[in-house]
Amino acid sequence: MTKVAVLGATGSVGQIFLQLLDRHPWFKVSAVAASDRSAGQIYREAVTWHSPTQIPEDLAELEIAPIEPKAFDDVDLVFSALPADVAKKTEERFAKAGYFVVSNASAHRLDRDVPLLNPEVNCDHLRLVEQQQRQRKWSGAIITSPNCSATILTLSLKPIQDAWGIKRVLVSTMQALSGAGYPGVASLDILDNVIPFIPNEEEKVEVETVRILGAPEKPADFKISASCHRVATSDGHLEAVFVETERSADPESVKAAMENFVGEPQRLNLPSAPPKPLVLKPDENRPQTRLDRMEGDGMAVTVGRVRSDDALNGVKYIALGHNTIRGAAGCAVLNAEYLKAMKYLDRWK
Amino acid sequence: MTKVAVLGATGSVGQIFLQLLDRHPWFKVSAVAASDRSAGQIYREAVTWHSPTQIPEDLAELEIAPIEPKAFDDVDLVFSALPADVAKKTEERFAKAGYFVVSNASAHRLDRDVPLLNPEVNCDHLRLVEQQQRQRKWSGAIITSPNCSATILTLSLKPIQDAWGIKRVLVSTMQALSGAGYPGVASLDILDNVIPFIPNEEEKVEVETVRILGAPEKPADFKISASCHRVATSDGHLEAVFVETERSADPESVKAAMENFVGEPQRLNLPSAPPKPLVLKPDENRPQTRLDRMEGDGMAVTVGRVRSDDALNGVKYIALGHNTIRGAAGCAVLNAEYLKAMKYLDRWK
Amino acid sequence: MTKVAVLGATGSVGQIFLQLLDRHPWFKVSAVAASDRSAGQIYREAVTWHSPTQIPEDLAELEIAPIEPKAFDDVDLVFSALPADVAKKTEERFAKAGYFVVSNASAHRLDRDVPLLNPEVNCDHLRLVEQQQRQRKWSGAIITSPNCSATILTLSLKPIQDAWGIKRVLVSTMQALSGAGYPGVASLDILDNVIPFIPNEEEKVEVETVRILGAPEKPADFKISASCHRVATSDGHLEAVFVETERSADPESVKAAMENFVGEPQRLNLPSAPPKPLVLKPDENRPQTRLDRMEGDGMAVTVGRVRSDDALNGVKYIALGHNTIRGAAGCAVLNAEYLKAMKYLDRWK
Amino acid sequence: MTKVAVLGATGSVGQIFLQLLDRHPWFKVSAVAASDRSAGQIYREAVTWHSPTQIPEDLAELEIAPIEPKAFDDVDLVFSALPADVAKKTEERFAKAGYFVVSNASAHRLDRDVPLLNPEVNCDHLRLVEQQQRQRKWSGAIITSPNCSATILTLSLKPIQDAWGIKRVLVSTMQALSGAGYPGVASLDILDNVIPFIPNEEEKVEVETVRILGAPEKPADFKISASCHRVATSDGHLEAVFVETERSADPESVKAAMENFVGEPQRLNLPSAPPKPLVLKPDENRPQTRLDRMEGDGMAVTVGRVRSDDALNGVKYIALGHNTIRGAAGCAVLNAEYLKAMKYLDRWK
Repeated sequence: MTKVAVLGATGSVGQIFLQLLDRHPWFKVSAVAASDRSAGQIYREAVTWHSPTQIPEDLAELEIAPIEPKAFDDVDLVFSALPADVAKKTEERFAKAGYFVVSNASAHRLDRDVPLLNPEVNCDHLRLVEQQQRQRKWSGAIITSPNCSATILTLSLKPIQDAWGIKRVLVSTMQALSGAGYPGVASLDILDNVIPFIPNEEEKVEVETVRILGAPEKPADFKISASCHRVATSDGHLEAVFVETERSADPESVKAAMENFVGEPQRLNLPSAPPKPLVLKPDENRPQTRLDRMEGDGMAVTVGRVRSDDALNGVKYIALGHNTIRGAAGCAVLNAEYLKAMKYLDRWK
Repeated sequence: MTKVAVLGATGSVGQIFLQLLDRHPWFKVSAVAASDRSAGQIYREAVTWHSPTQIPEDLAELEIAPIEPKAFDDVDLVFSALPADVAKKTEERFAKAGYFVVSNASAHRLDRDVPLLNPEVNCDHLRLVEQQQRQRKWSGAIITSPNCSATILTLSLKPIQDAWGIKRVLVSTMQALSGAGYPGVASLDILDNVIPFIPNEEEKVEVETVRILGAPEKPADFKISASCHRVATSDGHLEAVFVETERSADPESVKAAMENFVGEPQRLNLPSAPPKPLVLKPDENRPQTRLDRMEGDGMAVTVGRVRSDDALNGVKYIALGHNTIRGAAGCAVLNAEYLKAMKYLDRWK
Repeated sequence: MTKVAVLGATGSVGQIFLQLLDRHPWFKVSAVAASDRSAGQIYREAVTWHSPTQIPEDLAELEIAPIEPKAFDDVDLVFSALPADVAKKTEERFAKAGYFVVSNASAHRLDRDVPLLNPEVNCDHLRLVEQQQRQRKWSGAIITSPNCSATILTLSLKPIQDAWGIKRVLVSTMQALSGAGYPGVASLDILDNVIPFIPNEEEKVEVETVRILGAPEKPADFKISASCHRVATSDGHLEAVFVETERSADPESVKAAMENFVGEPQRLNLPSAPPKPLVLKPDENRPQTRLDRMEGDGMAVTVGRVRSDDALNGVKYIALGHNTIRGAAGCAVLNAEYLKAMKYLDRWK
Repeated sequence: MTKVAVLGATGSVGQIFLQLLDRHPWFKVSAVAASDRSAGQIYREAVTWHSPTQIPEDLAELEIAPIEPKAFDDVDLVFSALPADVAKKTEERFAKAGYFVVSNASAHRLDRDVPLLNPEVNCDHLRLVEQQQRQRKWSGAIITSPNCSATILTLSLKPIQDAWGIKRVLVSTMQALSGAGYPGVASLDILDNVIPFIPNEEEKVEVETVRILGAPEKPADFKISASCHRVATSDGHLEAVFVETERSADPESVKAAMENFVGEPQRLNLPSAPPKPLVLKPDENRPQTRLDRMEGDGMAVTVGRVRSDDALNGVKYIALGHNTIRGAAGCAVLNAEYLKAMKYLDRWK
């Protein structure tokens, strides 16, 4: 078992990490860390637990550690659920101290030598780790997982890019409340409402999507435009995607490509890899947020309504994924599994 | 005062008609008609009234008439809130019998000699009435108002088309529950959910938009693609619009064109015309469904977040309108006002 | 394995039966039956499946049988999820034909010789079966499970009745949408709303509660009053309960009595019995519908906020239970398990 | 016109004050005050305006004053929408400085010489002002309006108390989100949920109700017990009320007493007095939160489902009122109107 720590363990993404790592076959959480305000307290008492499931029993009584590299001597890998502003320096400190930091924060996603990894899509980007360690003279490294909406989007686009090439992507998202953290969106702001704005989200979706679907050193050169909206759902980001392809793609072939798509996590049979990363829903009114977000234990992206696009030379479809699992902590855990499977954790430290 | 009748007066759109026509300065409802099941009953008793406002007092005690032309001798204009399947033959019968039928039903919207009228956008289409009467040998006529989402979309596109020309439109809608009528969407289907499918809606939006923005005899030739979604809001359709323009359009100029836009209803000072058909919201998180749907008493479309589009050579923005007012009964009432102002009601009958 | 059939298998309670019986250690669904409209069709095609979980695989391809005793030769027990009007005669026909009918319908709940069974509370009522068979000359029998709100209420009241006696109960419910079946409550009726009326619900809660908490032949003689309300939750009925006790009861003792309470299903270790039928939540803002409804796999009732009542000589508290599991299909399955454990199924047929 | 100031004008109750006072026939807002953080800013820029209606135009450009008596020389009456902790000392300072402070805060509600006024119910309590001024040696005075739930409850109880006497009241509330202020309840906490706890609310309802329905110097001596719950509605508190009466009361007579009930505000024809303070809804499923909260412009309480109570010797019914209008700012404005009509504002200052 690889011993891991979770930084930012009391926050909402931190809580998802603990749920996903509970009884994980490869990883054992041996430390939870949070801000100075909570450090020293017992986890059960410091946390406002949001989920209907219980706090994993062996973690509930852990004393919360401060967010300092020296606090985790026996740990091989650190998951970061830190807020972006804190993440920047902190993650660097941990990497410098020799830890592998698998981060869900946005702070380092666009650093040229940091992999932004959605493992079914661009596991070859992991090789940036070597460059990162060489340039920064670190024995550890930072590996980031993408923005929630970009994770879902890139997974759905990958088989299209592979088979037909992509010229242009337009995407309109209907995003869940949990994406804003806790307390996040005020109830009075969202009851009977749609909020057509999420700070910095469109920029993240656009920039990260072309980075993920490009080469490790060079973003893809298709054009992309996003419009992001908050709706009154608890979990699950639904996306209406319009794609112009380089070569003519008919909907039936696109469906087949999506259904048959697998990535390295499936080939390596990683513990958190869903059997199929893309699950095609045949009903004309699916995927639906409430019904389909837990597909593949929240790690699969469901797609549906693949049809010709009358305005672009291509297809349009609906994609849906669980934003705090596939789109956040789950993707990070899968990244860590891939790291371990590729023996990265053995090589250093 | 022009005496009017409302066909389908007990349904949800019918109820909006009665509310909008209550104390109308030009029109007086002198008859309400509904299916055989309700005909003969007192309106108050036959209807399941959905609005927090009361049933207009003078209408509450009316006896419901059957849906037959002969029942309305003293009526000059008939509003139709009939379901599409009933509307087709019934509206024809009324037009043949000499009535002007201002319809919210989809049955005749695509007939080549029937105006599909969103009056700030294409009031010149009204001239199809002459052709209709000549060809069909009717003394009355049918005038239709567009699909709710198309009404909102075309209003927002008109100043862009006028100033820069349109090559391509992609639109993703987040539509309210009232658009499905009553009882409509089951509560269990929409709580904590998005349903990414509305039967026939995308087709209507696509076809009607190019018809409205074209010449009376010939649809506009830009390309259009819609993706339509149901969300948990009561009233108000919000639309994320991506537009490729023929000539380069910068966001500030588009905002100015939207703000300055007026149409014939404003110039004629029609009673139901909102002071400004497009109201620009400067805040970065507006328009919002709950906060802005009643702008201009529900007759204005609010727009916001006009910004450059990175994938199309153009702009993207958010548009919002009240689906049962501007997008249904309100647009039909405005059409009727325009008919009257243009003396159509005087010329025949 | 006891072979069972589910009558009304395509309805919403019927679907819960199938989920609960999937991989059940004692029961195997060998037939699903539904109205003539569906009979003859394949289950997967006839049903509108509402749950995020899949249709149990071995049932999905079953052909739907008509609701006739002769259709189920090899079946030992029949679960009824029939609507009340159909249930009355149909369940009698099955019981007469020798089947044990474990019903969730209200039709026979108040028959004096039919057990109305909430097994942790009144398993001794099962002895009415002998009387029923003798009087009606049936080799089978009908056993009913209570109204959802009454199931939850009586479970929470039982330890209080045992230790202090009950003089008076007032209860105000906040009930979930799934209690109204499907399509049930229209979304436009419940968004941003509370509906303070559920047809016949208050009467059922009042009458069934005293019956369950009484002797098999004689209802309890405390007074009861219910006020029932529909709120915008998917599953889970929350109840505010005020109790006047015969002997003075302090909140701490009531909490202890609730926590320590177990019934025959726990003693017999029945497969669907929750480890604790009542789970006390210590936090001052619990139980909450979304967080606690699945306690004990939806079979436990959670209680909290036990405090002195200033108006009655007693206590008030909050109780919460899953209405379609504990309050419907789950209680019926537990009843069937109790029947089997008590060898009722062996004695006849 | 009486010039008034609003303290706490940027908060959510403060905003309702401004809406209700806009174009008020007797009062003119000449100053808005808020905490030091906002003081000095222009109102439009300092406020996060929550309502679909616009900020009253003449107030939007006001400079926000600090919350100091000396800032309001020409003001005769001060409305306080301050948070409870700030309100205590601040309101005293204003009263001492000679202002009449009409407060919505809870800080002084239980002071024995401060009127807790729901004007249709206990306008005679206003005479405590003389005692207050004498004892405290103030030229101004503090007058408080009750807790939102208590306002609604006492209005509905008053005609029952008058005609039959009250022995016992039990009430279970289903309260709206706006009652928690802004941002208030997190959306993730209330979607698909009921929260059966509102801090201090039950205590307020119980204590204030007997105070309001008692003599100025002595609370009523009936027993009362409340259970308070938060549900997913925007505005409008719905209450299930169970009443034991001293003399036997049949539902029809109670309905008649409610329908015929009027108070001093109606007799004096005060501008904000609803025509009928209690509006009886005859339909069996009314009042409903969304449909009925705006009755009497949000100043009336609607009642319905008056029926015999099987557990208490009395009746049970549903009452509903708008929590931020009748239950907060609206009641305070009505109190101020009553003060003015009774010439209190003339006598001092």
